[in-house]
Amino acid sequence: MLEDKNQKKTSIAELGEFGLIDHLTKNIQITQESTIKSIGDDAAVLDFNNKKVVISTDLLIEGVHFDLAYMPLKHLGYKAVVVNISDICAMNATATQITVSIAISNRFPLEAVEELYEGIQLAAKTYNVDIIGGDTTSSQKGLIISITAIGESNLDEIVYRNGAQPNDLLVVTGDIGAAYMGLQVLEREKQVFQVNPNNQPDLEHYSYLIERQLKPEARKDIKELLSKLEVKPTSMIDVSDGLSSEILHICKQSNVGCNLYEDKIPADPQLINVCEEFNIDITTIALSGGEDYELLFTIKMDDFDKIKANPNFTVIGHITEEKEGIHLITRANTKIPLKARGWNSLSEK
Amino acid sequence: MLEDKNQKKTSIAELGEFGLIDHLTKNIQITQESTIKSIGDDAAVLDFNNKKVVISTDLLIEGVHFDLAYMPLKHLGYKAVVVNISDICAMNATATQITVSIAISNRFPLEAVEELYEGIQLAAKTYNVDIIGGDTTSSQKGLIISITAIGESNLDEIVYRNGAQPNDLLVVTGDIGAAYMGLQVLEREKQVFQVNPNNQPDLEHYSYLIERQLKPEARKDIKELLSKLEVKPTSMIDVSDGLSSEILHICKQSNVGCNLYEDKIPADPQLINVCEEFNIDITTIALSGGEDYELLFTIKMDDFDKIKANPNFTVIGHITEEKEGIHLITRANTKIPLKARGWNSLSEK
Repeated sequence: MLEDKNQKKTSIAELGEFGLIDHLTKNIQITQESTIKSIGDDAAVLDFNNKKVVISTDLLIEGVHFDLAYMPLKHLGYKAVVVNISDICAMNATATQITVSIAISNRFPLEAVEELYEGIQLAAKTYNVDIIGGDTTSSQKGLIISITAIGESNLDEIVYRNGAQPNDLLVVTGDIGAAYMGLQVLEREKQVFQVNPNNQPDLEHYSYLIERQLKPEARKDIKELLSKLEVKPTSMIDVSDGLSSEILHICKQSNVGCNLYEDKIPADPQLINVCEEFNIDITTIALSGGEDYELLFTIKMDDFDKIKANPNFTVIGHITEEKEGIHLITRANTKIPLKARGWNSLSEK
Repeated sequence: MLEDKNQKKTSIAELGEFGLIDHLTKNIQITQESTIKSIGDDAAVLDFNNKKVVISTDLLIEGVHFDLAYMPLKHLGYKAVVVNISDICAMNATATQITVSIAISNRFPLEAVEELYEGIQLAAKTYNVDIIGGDTTSSQKGLIISITAIGESNLDEIVYRNGAQPNDLLVVTGDIGAAYMGLQVLEREKQVFQVNPNNQPDLEHYSYLIERQLKPEARKDIKELLSKLEVKPTSMIDVSDGLSSEILHICKQSNVGCNLYEDKIPADPQLINVCEEFNIDITTIALSGGEDYELLFTIKMDDFDKIKANPNFTVIGHITEEKEGIHLITRANTKIPLKARGWNSLSEK
């Protein structure tokens, strides 16, 4: 639907594996001081001095994690990097390098891979990370992207999932739910397109939701912001599978309970409108949608004054003793046990 | 052909993504001092003190890199780890951690993934590396494995591909070509099996070749050995794509030429016999076969005395000025330009 059918097509087989790698990586710039040796050897070499190294990895599969019918390749490349950097941000660390492996079936011409790589390089530039290696191969079916993100941090700045304590406040950055509704809008448009390919969709009313889905950003600003405010979270996670699932991770690993207040969950006005249009409950979307890539964290109650005036943060609940359980307090003031209903790539198949 | 058709089958969907990860990782032990935080958070945290960090990554796709018709899953898991550790060894570094991502289609029951993971854990134990993270998801087709290996080294011990100098000696560890012929034997047996499934193959005469294909080992012993002999290679690479391709990498990156002597290339007696049986030229196999995971390196001529008595090493050529080119000197003393004919996963599709 977003594809230009008249694009030039060069077969990748003409280039070969090494030719393709050379072609894609020839313009890659190294900016991180910690990168000693980048692409071109058996492995990359990094120097973090006395800082700790933080590593996270993700595997994205066409048809499972993304649909090229509405995901332009450049956006896909960008997003693939962002979701990994988000994991580094969730440790309160700073992303410094990525490795990028891609497998492509022979239906992809060189120009498609270039577009994907353009998005990857744009994200690397935006987030100031070096592309230091990877692998390029063919797949039997579809596109596969595997990214490993590497970051650095002083040990005393790293925040784990397991440090939440009773009476801590539960805080989330930005707003929640928009990315998932963006996906619903795109799915609907895809169906309209299949019925009538000449239909020109008017997506203006959905622009924020679609951007959150197609071009999410990782909250790399939060580490610095919290540091300026002199707040160190007691636990932290990024919101990739929906609020429910992330709250359960923090509570399970910290051995605590939680009360989440439905009326506090931050939502963009566009999300509120579109949930009405689709007749979908906005809280369900926030709890189970996912792909927000906001940060969810807990802070000591004493730190509340330091963050309360900052528009980046919303207090959405508080931590309780483990035995009190994990609950959503609804607008009607009912207490409902919170369940993981996050996106599950295995059980959906 | 090596599959037990009566095995118990448990659907992975029953477990869900987090259940599967918990199930697979519950017995994972951490042994590396540098691993501060392993599986279970947004990212792993590592501490290398003053050592440098070495990182390499590989993406393995069913039907492109392996065939489950003759590759038992446990061996596949083992090999997937080994090929990545081999890249760390090729930097003259010590592997310390791996991340393991797998994507599986719904044709795989839980028991299959367990078997794969058993091999992965066996390799991790054998090579003393910690499994510190990864991703588990579904695929639309087949099995996909993405492994990132992390290692450490002092800066002055790291060996790149680009340090070879004219008059250096070209040295290879172990023997070359067996893994590729192992693959030919297995391919032949697969065809026999397809014609007559009751045929019981007698693979005794091919045991070494098959082991080299199905259960290769990375030369993690070489770093220590070279250090004891007080030899620091001037350049190094691992033999994954065949001798030709690796020699060309070293020469291209070091801006040198090379003479490789056909009669010096080390071959196992079993390989010699089987090449005769298959009527295949053994030098072609050594040059273009690949998957040997031996180390190819260059040393200063002055270091020859230190390595000449060691059965792990064979001098197979010497480095020349760039303008002299890269040649194979045949048994008949003819000079043939060396070309990259290594295994290319892209152009084969």
